[in-house]
Amino acid sequence: MGPGPSDVPSQVLRAQGAPTIGHLDPEFLRCMDECRAMIRAVYGTENTMTLPISGTGSAGMETLFANLLEPGDAALICTHGVFGGRMAEVARRQGAEVVEVKAPWGQPLDPEKVAAAGAGRRFRVLALVHAETSTGVLQDLAPFRAIADEHGALLVADCVTSFAGVPIELDRHGVDAAYSGTQKCLSAPPGLAPISLSERAMERVRAREHEVRSWYLDLRLLARYWGDERAYHHTAPVNAIFGLHEALRLVLTEGLEARYERHARLSGELQAGLRGLGLELPVAETHRLPPLTLVGIPDGKDDKQVRRHLLDRYGLEIGGGLGDFAGKAWRIGLMGASCTPRHIALCLSALEDALS
Amino acid sequence: MGPGPSDVPSQVLRAQGAPTIGHLDPEFLRCMDECRAMIRAVYGTENTMTLPISGTGSAGMETLFANLLEPGDAALICTHGVFGGRMAEVARRQGAEVVEVKAPWGQPLDPEKVAAAGAGRRFRVLALVHAETSTGVLQDLAPFRAIADEHGALLVADCVTSFAGVPIELDRHGVDAAYSGTQKCLSAPPGLAPISLSERAMERVRAREHEVRSWYLDLRLLARYWGDERAYHHTAPVNAIFGLHEALRLVLTEGLEARYERHARLSGELQAGLRGLGLELPVAETHRLPPLTLVGIPDGKDDKQVRRHLLDRYGLEIGGGLGDFAGKAWRIGLMGASCTPRHIALCLSALEDALS
Repeated sequence: MGPGPSDVPSQVLRAQGAPTIGHLDPEFLRCMDECRAMIRAVYGTENTMTLPISGTGSAGMETLFANLLEPGDAALICTHGVFGGRMAEVARRQGAEVVEVKAPWGQPLDPEKVAAAGAGRRFRVLALVHAETSTGVLQDLAPFRAIADEHGALLVADCVTSFAGVPIELDRHGVDAAYSGTQKCLSAPPGLAPISLSERAMERVRAREHEVRSWYLDLRLLARYWGDERAYHHTAPVNAIFGLHEALRLVLTEGLEARYERHARLSGELQAGLRGLGLELPVAETHRLPPLTLVGIPDGKDDKQVRRHLLDRYGLEIGGGLGDFAGKAWRIGLMGASCTPRHIALCLSALEDALS
Repeated sequence: MGPGPSDVPSQVLRAQGAPTIGHLDPEFLRCMDECRAMIRAVYGTENTMTLPISGTGSAGMETLFANLLEPGDAALICTHGVFGGRMAEVARRQGAEVVEVKAPWGQPLDPEKVAAAGAGRRFRVLALVHAETSTGVLQDLAPFRAIADEHGALLVADCVTSFAGVPIELDRHGVDAAYSGTQKCLSAPPGLAPISLSERAMERVRAREHEVRSWYLDLRLLARYWGDERAYHHTAPVNAIFGLHEALRLVLTEGLEARYERHARLSGELQAGLRGLGLELPVAETHRLPPLTLVGIPDGKDDKQVRRHLLDRYGLEIGGGLGDFAGKAWRIGLMGASCTPRHIALCLSALEDALS
């Protein structure tokens, strides 16, 4: 019950244990196409350019910035935790001029402040984190399409912890590009990064002056393998994609609405239980991310000692705080298959013991 | 029996199907350390900087060039097939000035020609493919340390198809950096890239003027997670590494010498059988790569029709030719768990049927 990886259902583990077949085998090509369709459904998009990158969520992040930014481009990046900071770092390494808009850790961004920070300037990209895994803040995407338009920017969202746990709706919010990981609310093992780009974003990629610096993550090359051409690029991680296929199937079988409702309802129960133990929740209720709850460490309790007790005695992992919350808060995940009443009961009992 | 992925033993599939645990769980940290030690054993090296990159073999290639080359550096790259060409392309995208030495496809490089091509110049890197998967040529590494020294260059080798199938001996040959994939002679699913860098290569990485353009593949950051510091970088692909661990264990249990002898002996049997069917083997016997045999397509036989027949009727995949051999040759893999008398018997019978 840390900030990921979450528990992986046995069906997913079994699916990724199927005999390995060739990356150009017709059966595997069908599996790829079905994965793409299911990823589109979860993202709420019709984007043709939707596929899993052969790397973890951070590789998904790097794919978008490496393809959308060229040296000298300006990028407006919103930072209110580790992953906003990581986006700024990745964008800088692409040679972009990065302007950061910062909100305090544990709080969401103020859209007016973002608009003001970019006022009168053109940016290639406006990027923000939908679900900040380092703080447990859920950022409302709705106001940002209009702000991106004012700056002439593509809108990019980190959906690592929201994918399959919180509604995303890329098309409705006009998000141009998004990335996620498999090990959070999707409950597949870590190792793949589902991404999606709008046609407008792909036009930008096709119009680049300079080649993408990463050959491995070059979307124009990846599109030739994942599209109708089936041109060999790299050997796809076949078994991981079998697992992804099953995890996506389980998500759509449960139903997106039911899945979102489950995460919202059970996170409410967890939070009530935590408050019942006298614990504080630093993130305001209106911005709390259902799959990840930030919990203040009570005065006089030792961060590592408590976490070690939980792991040794109960086999229960919870996450430590990061950045401004290092040593001051824990992060408790309720993601996908790890979001059940059973997990909540164990977590509350174990914490009560560890804190007593 | 294509050019990879090879068959994956059930023990490896089961190992990667173990319950997912956290990427900082003490049990997982131990698994990481054991993987590093076993990768060192297979590479024949004492290099501290030895780890599996969270991506496929091509990500391993990109990791080395992205970390060892800076914009404006000169790189001498030897090309005698697809993967030499890919190295040149990846190096160019890092902003390096690439000088290519080419040998005809299906033939090895002439060390004297490589020495002459770089005569009087300094290069940052001299790179070559040990086992060219696109042609089935095994390149002797022995003469290249001295040539690299003449050019002041680090020696880089692509060991994708040699790892765990053909002796490599990085330290004995003075190779500074090597990369491989998991889906060839190691017989794990595709998705990880075991790499190893000498201390001299790491000194070069630490002395860089410019940051590595890829944050995901930055070796200085990866060293902090894979080393004693255990600093979070990205979420490791936990289950894939469980599978890698078991695949490496099986390799070392069989024994490296026994494994190399098996690949050499059985590839001899396959080649004798293919010649018995009247087929030609375009690569000279002295340079034939045991795990991958190039087979000429007889006049009048249709490449795709034969391969489709093998797949539909026998569930047998063999590879098509690439580059100069497209439509002219097949590539038959005998790698790891797919290197058995049973595979050879099936392949020869099925080919005899398909060609009759």
